Amino acid sequence: MMIIMMADATKEQVAIVIERIEFFGLGAHLSEGEERTVIGAIGDGRPIQQDLFLHMPGVDRVLPISRPYKLASREFKPANSIIPVNGVKTGSNQVLIIAGPCSVESRSQMLETAHAVKEAGAHALRGGAFKPRTSPYSFQGMGEEGLEILAEAREETGMPIVTEVMSPKQVPLVVGYADVLQIGARNMQNYPLLHAVGESQKPALLKRGLMATVDELLMAAEYILSHGNRQVLLCERGIRTYETSTRNTTDINAVPVLKSLTHLPVILDPSHSTGHWNYVAAIARAGIAAGADGLIVEVHREPAEALSDGGQSLKPERFAELVCQVRAVAEAVGRSVEH
Amino acid sequence: MMIIMMADATKEQVAIVIERIEFFGLGAHLSEGEERTVIGAIGDGRPIQQDLFLHMPGVDRVLPISRPYKLASREFKPANSIIPVNGVKTGSNQVLIIAGPCSVESRSQMLETAHAVKEAGAHALRGGAFKPRTSPYSFQGMGEEGLEILAEAREETGMPIVTEVMSPKQVPLVVGYADVLQIGARNMQNYPLLHAVGESQKPALLKRGLMATVDELLMAAEYILSHGNRQVLLCERGIRTYETSTRNTTDINAVPVLKSLTHLPVILDPSHSTGHWNYVAAIARAGIAAGADGLIVEVHREPAEALSDGGQSLKPERFAELVCQVRAVAEAVGRSVEH
Amino acid sequence: MMIIMMADATKEQVAIVIERIEFFGLGAHLSEGEERTVIGAIGDGRPIQQDLFLHMPGVDRVLPISRPYKLASREFKPANSIIPVNGVKTGSNQVLIIAGPCSVESRSQMLETAHAVKEAGAHALRGGAFKPRTSPYSFQGMGEEGLEILAEAREETGMPIVTEVMSPKQVPLVVGYADVLQIGARNMQNYPLLHAVGESQKPALLKRGLMATVDELLMAAEYILSHGNRQVLLCERGIRTYETSTRNTTDINAVPVLKSLTHLPVILDPSHSTGHWNYVAAIARAGIAAGADGLIVEVHREPAEALSDGGQSLKPERFAELVCQVRAVAEAVGRSVEH
Amino acid sequence: MMIIMMADATKEQVAIVIERIEFFGLGAHLSEGEERTVIGAIGDGRPIQQDLFLHMPGVDRVLPISRPYKLASREFKPANSIIPVNGVKTGSNQVLIIAGPCSVESRSQMLETAHAVKEAGAHALRGGAFKPRTSPYSFQGMGEEGLEILAEAREETGMPIVTEVMSPKQVPLVVGYADVLQIGARNMQNYPLLHAVGESQKPALLKRGLMATVDELLMAAEYILSHGNRQVLLCERGIRTYETSTRNTTDINAVPVLKSLTHLPVILDPSHSTGHWNYVAAIARAGIAAGADGLIVEVHREPAEALSDGGQSLKPERFAELVCQVRAVAEAVGRSVEH
Repeated sequence: MMIIMMADATKEQVAIVIERIEFFGLGAHLSEGEERTVIGAIGDGRPIQQDLFLHMPGVDRVLPISRPYKLASREFKPANSIIPVNGVKTGSNQVLIIAGPCSVESRSQMLETAHAVKEAGAHALRGGAFKPRTSPYSFQGMGEEGLEILAEAREETGMPIVTEVMSPKQVPLVVGYADVLQIGARNMQNYPLLHAVGESQKPALLKRGLMATVDELLMAAEYILSHGNRQVLLCERGIRTYETSTRNTTDINAVPVLKSLTHLPVILDPSHSTGHWNYVAAIARAGIAAGADGLIVEVHREPAEALSDGGQSLKPERFAELVCQVRAVAEAVGRSVEH
Repeated sequence: MMIIMMADATKEQVAIVIERIEFFGLGAHLSEGEERTVIGAIGDGRPIQQDLFLHMPGVDRVLPISRPYKLASREFKPANSIIPVNGVKTGSNQVLIIAGPCSVESRSQMLETAHAVKEAGAHALRGGAFKPRTSPYSFQGMGEEGLEILAEAREETGMPIVTEVMSPKQVPLVVGYADVLQIGARNMQNYPLLHAVGESQKPALLKRGLMATVDELLMAAEYILSHGNRQVLLCERGIRTYETSTRNTTDINAVPVLKSLTHLPVILDPSHSTGHWNYVAAIARAGIAAGADGLIVEVHREPAEALSDGGQSLKPERFAELVCQVRAVAEAVGRSVEH
Repeated sequence: MMIIMMADATKEQVAIVIERIEFFGLGAHLSEGEERTVIGAIGDGRPIQQDLFLHMPGVDRVLPISRPYKLASREFKPANSIIPVNGVKTGSNQVLIIAGPCSVESRSQMLETAHAVKEAGAHALRGGAFKPRTSPYSFQGMGEEGLEILAEAREETGMPIVTEVMSPKQVPLVVGYADVLQIGARNMQNYPLLHAVGESQKPALLKRGLMATVDELLMAAEYILSHGNRQVLLCERGIRTYETSTRNTTDINAVPVLKSLTHLPVILDPSHSTGHWNYVAAIARAGIAAGADGLIVEVHREPAEALSDGGQSLKPERFAELVCQVRAVAEAVGRSVEH
Repeated sequence: MMIIMMADATKEQVAIVIERIEFFGLGAHLSEGEERTVIGAIGDGRPIQQDLFLHMPGVDRVLPISRPYKLASREFKPANSIIPVNGVKTGSNQVLIIAGPCSVESRSQMLETAHAVKEAGAHALRGGAFKPRTSPYSFQGMGEEGLEILAEAREETGMPIVTEVMSPKQVPLVVGYADVLQIGARNMQNYPLLHAVGESQKPALLKRGLMATVDELLMAAEYILSHGNRQVLLCERGIRTYETSTRNTTDINAVPVLKSLTHLPVILDPSHSTGHWNYVAAIARAGIAAGADGLIVEVHREPAEALSDGGQSLKPERFAELVCQVRAVAEAVGRSVEH
């Protein structure tokens, strides 16, 4: 941490800052410029709170030096974490494809879609039983009945289930059905939920909040990791910006940035990150070209009748084309989409 | 809802859209322009899902007409909701002032600060016992012990307590101590929590998510209102933008916008919305000048020693000046800050 | 400037960075932490390019320490710059009010509006003769004929003229008519224009770009100041964010931030910063309460007939109310709106 | 355009709006819902100003239906515009690659880099002679001397020159040297400049402003097109968001969005859109996978010594790898990078 003093800070103010740095067991290194003094607080790698210095007399700004996460960082663990999902070694050169409807709406819709996405090349099945909805008047999901339908779909197709958990209390229930626990974008900083998922031993798919920074996503992953669960898949699903021609803005930069900062696999959700079915395939290809380790795609047998996210869902035949295109791009960058 | 067809949509496609509108019990009104056809779906005021039409062949865009919330809207309830807090009729011309530290850190810190803010003119006391923190390694609050200290501070000073609740499971515990339940910005769309707070009968202070639109804030309030709790105070606490010279950007426009869209009181949090103690008083004055019904301000007896948010906390004497300034501005706009 | 080395940087890499720092005539100060080495480049106050170090082997990040502007900074000139406009000492405790239509549309519209805003309490008259419009098919302003009408309005009312200049070539023409040269938000980083206005001796009203940071606004001011013109009024006119309930988001924080960073006066434009006439007065009051030195407000004798910005223009009678409200708030914060 | 009346609008207010619509030669279509009346203003395709209706009594909101641009739209011209650059038919399935340094710094730097990028596979050479710089104290480019060096590089390598023009007055000079006129992000809404470039007959590379929407980019293109120049290449170069881990956020969604809205070719600038050399290749691959028609990449023989943008420039050998990778991805999506 570097503490930048004001141009008119006094020697006494500098001395008090140094004293406080040392009080916290850190070393203080002084750089006296012609305009300003800068004090480095050099420690043993534990994060120190900037707040503790910000308010001191004579202090202008405080700049962090170390990243605030540790277990999630590539410096801590240089090799990629490999998380196996249905035989796909996610995080290796194998690309994972998850697909399915936004919500479980009925047994027939779910089973039909499950068979269709499997045939098209998906490795795992998504489907929401508990749905966080902006409006209290919208369809909120089928709940446990939806989980049972998902289990049936798994039995029929052999595909593992990725489904959302919305509160700590739901974790034991959802763990009983799911193969991967999804934490939604709105819950990325729901700390009691991260804690509970961290204590389960199921792989977690952690979606980036729609206005979260890359660092905040990694801090949320750190919550899960620090509670003992080391199987975290990060998911870029678009961020909120001023641009309104798409529902969200795919932060494609986040793919190589995350791959450089962390050892955890990175999954792209082109359905939410665009919000329009006709842009999904282009962004899926882009994600794999940029280095993503997998995709999660919304597919519905009849998007025009979907109870949620119909506008961004693909028909099964379009999804099959997407898988072909993505496979070609994956091979062009030295990776593979397993059959 | 207006459904805008593509320039090359066929008559059949238009007919199918009309059929679907009527299937949902709505009326369809056709406007055929020289370039495009626009179809209005006119209903009985219930929100209709745009998604259901977005994906249909020939449809270009779908535009909502009605606001998605009802109980929160001023159209539904034209007169201001008045929520009494310690004798201050919040939502009337009386301005409510809540103050206190970010977190409860110790008995002496809390009691000292409580007395100081009361003397300076605060009507209610804030203080967090459960703290949502970005890092799993930061101080997470004193928990129930903190709630007990808050109760003691209430007993000593007579001021009601505003404190955060982080999960549905905590609601019964916190309800036993708090006078106003605070829902933090990161939890604005934690629907199980909104549901639980909606079923309690305590007034709720709902903070706007740092990524939330005004409409989303009102939808979150709708969740609480629709579960039976009509005492909701909305809190603007700054939004995230590209500007980094302050911690957040105070959306001061949201004050008159909310006052025009809803009957619920609007509270401004200038401590979080700026993130720097030296801008807090200016923004507090601005909030009241713009029509806010109250303020919530972080005050610490010794900000440089605060375990969280020290950089944005005021010393008690500075807070006393703020109250004087705010009182003068309130009177200039026909309102009052009661002693 | 602080240069943060990667955790695995070698001693040789550190040595080469130090050599380069010294090559540019700066002093290098080394802080070796247990995790990383940080090198301070300490200079004589001239800005140094971070780019020159970013790419060097072993360098992780480069953080600036000094602000990149000098003439605009309060450190360089601690006392407020006072810019007199029609007897109002802008930058002192006197508040400047500029009002008028978005565009000059006709002689009668302009003269009528000029008389009306003068009577309501305005000190200076705004009106665009050259209009930057998003669409090539929109009304582009009356050009020189508009300037002549403005001159006539000045002669009739005694009010100085604030009007926009769009290109370096127009500067000599506009200087012949205007009392204050306005640089529009879209031109905030039009450097040839800033250069030309910097060489004129007219006061400049520099509008913040709709996605410019506070630092970039001050750098744009630095261009004008460094070319010899010391009379710069900064104008906050709202920034672009994800929120769409208003046209722009008033960055009210920028008012106290700018007042602390620079000696230049700060003017608020609540018409553009909200985009809706019914929010203009609330935000005008907020601006003055926050410490702004003046306001620029769009007023039209018949907003529903305005050729541009009708939706955010006030009728003269509403503007008169705004002036009364603003005067009361100004007095509450120890300032005055002169008659 | 749809005009949405307030819930309590009177019949008289509706009648006056209809009258005004008809006054402008448009047709009015009425939809009376149970809650609100909506009036469609149906015209002959010319854009109508929403502002003219926003302020009328009883009007709540005004929603545009038609896109505000015409010549740039795919509805107006369904087939791709093909712009030949050095034999590459940009806009067809052939991918254009432009490369070179940010600025011309010296004859040897420019000639060496030109040869290197040609050998690596570039089709055209970039290099700035006039540089828009945030700081008045930074290197502002070599001016006409730089243009002469660029002409010499063209003569030696046979590659056409892409270089920036910053003001209308510079257009004749730059036209004498350049093959493609670049309009920088900060000048995207510099209308006198767009006008002047529109009257030249040189192809224009129009960079998206870092605060511009897709619609605003297309409106800026419309300015050029409507002044007679039909050879416009659109350039996505990253937008400004809250995320700070990269210099800008690549709006990869804009690639398929633009390809669907317009017939003009779309070029991606991964150097500016990331700001870090180590992310450039990943984003270049992503752009081509998403459907971009070309790339513009910053290459410097010795990035650590570059006078500008060193941090985002590639060394020639890394650029050669990028071209290989991009060629493989282009072929995977049915396109080609010509040798």
